[in-house]
Amino acid sequence: MASGPEAGEGDGRVTAAVLIIGDEILSGRTQDTNLRDIARYLGVLGIDLAEARTVPDVLEEIVAALNALRSRYDYVITTGGIGPTHDDITADAVAAAFGVELEEHPEILAMMERRWGGELNAARRRMARVPVGGDLVKNPVQGPPGFTIGNVFVLAGVPQIMRGMLEDVGPRLRGGRVTVSRTVRVEGSGEGQIAAPLEAVARAHPQMSLGSYPFFGPDGYGSNLVLRGRDPAEVEAVVGELTAALRQAGVENVREVEPAA
Amino acid sequence: MASGPEAGEGDGRVTAAVLIIGDEILSGRTQDTNLRDIARYLGVLGIDLAEARTVPDVLEEIVAALNALRSRYDYVITTGGIGPTHDDITADAVAAAFGVELEEHPEILAMMERRWGGELNAARRRMARVPVGGDLVKNPVQGPPGFTIGNVFVLAGVPQIMRGMLEDVGPRLRGGRVTVSRTVRVEGSGEGQIAAPLEAVARAHPQMSLGSYPFFGPDGYGSNLVLRGRDPAEVEAVVGELTAALRQAGVENVREVEPAA
Repeated sequence: MASGPEAGEGDGRVTAAVLIIGDEILSGRTQDTNLRDIARYLGVLGIDLAEARTVPDVLEEIVAALNALRSRYDYVITTGGIGPTHDDITADAVAAAFGVELEEHPEILAMMERRWGGELNAARRRMARVPVGGDLVKNPVQGPPGFTIGNVFVLAGVPQIMRGMLEDVGPRLRGGRVTVSRTVRVEGSGEGQIAAPLEAVARAHPQMSLGSYPFFGPDGYGSNLVLRGRDPAEVEAVVGELTAALRQAGVENVREVEPAA
Repeated sequence: MASGPEAGEGDGRVTAAVLIIGDEILSGRTQDTNLRDIARYLGVLGIDLAEARTVPDVLEEIVAALNALRSRYDYVITTGGIGPTHDDITADAVAAAFGVELEEHPEILAMMERRWGGELNAARRRMARVPVGGDLVKNPVQGPPGFTIGNVFVLAGVPQIMRGMLEDVGPRLRGGRVTVSRTVRVEGSGEGQIAAPLEAVARAHPQMSLGSYPFFGPDGYGSNLVLRGRDPAEVEAVVGELTAALRQAGVENVREVEPAA
């Protein structure tokens, strides 16, 4: 958890949301990793992931979430539901959300005809459907491309394919000021001892985000204190301030470490 | 992805939502695993996880998500933000969402006085705050308990503590009819070949959820077809129907396997 600047402060912050589409995540069958991968990818571009939602494979649910998110954030990235089976309804939902029709994209059809020839059946043709007005998102891994319309990017759910598609999304995004992150690790002290000095330093730097991520290891309590901000000099200075404040409060075993990520 | 019965069909379905509170998830610093653990725990109780949201440590964001979810689903389980540091604001947000005050819970205070004695400082006392009218959720691992108010359960974010608290939540939930899950694995055939027979069987059993989860392994394309339903006899029968339909469609290497989970 971390305190820090809020969304929509008009601070030139660029925001994004992730919409994870898939019963397999909500059933607990599959462990999602796309959210973290997208968050890290966007972070490097200075884009803040501001919210994420996971919804089932139900058209109305996908449409409602998509419209809520695309109206609120600069970008929305969806994962899942773009395969050829009857339960892959992401394209239908995106078209419905934008109030447009789906059409078979000639490039995808040509691609598929080369790949499948006579075996290009109705199911496979489903994957050629793109909302009218949409553009393609390259798929460097395997299978058909994703697509984008408005501020929404529609990617595959399979992690390695999603990551490949993300490489074609990044260049189309307006980046923000990159967030710099530093981590101060405290060992042998619980958050209860850390809280007061941490809060004092956090209050003195409202434009930064100071988070405490406690752990309970073999050597007892500890916490990673993560400092995030867009001004590298300020972040550097606050690492020193926080370290000094902790030691002054009698907290021992304080040192800067590389981020866990 | 999977097709299947929708929420709110009045089919006696019991639903839940998960609200993950924490900048560390949205920054990509931490890989969430609580969603999957909660989904699996609820699944055994016959409760469907219908939606999940991840929001930052911003009071207004947490309150808005909490009110949207608790009004729509039978239960809401939150994770994260219940520690002693200034950025742990989940209790404040839950109290605000329910329009009640926070009060120091005598049991937690007594617990903390035994643990900390004179070292029970203001930061630690923050963790004794519970919304008026709330009950405690036992923490069998370490640290203070979680709490519950209305249909909302507030748990820790640290996975092993969250899982421990979940054991005290389960007995308070109204279970639904347990979903039975079976998996039919197809190797060497892409979803494009599988789609038509799969859809035919899915349409014949609207009360069941049939999902296709493709993979691309060393031996080429394949997919795990997951059949989920609340009538064990129907699920059993559909495994046979699907297997036969796939073979009739010329799909080879079809066999039932244990679920990946």
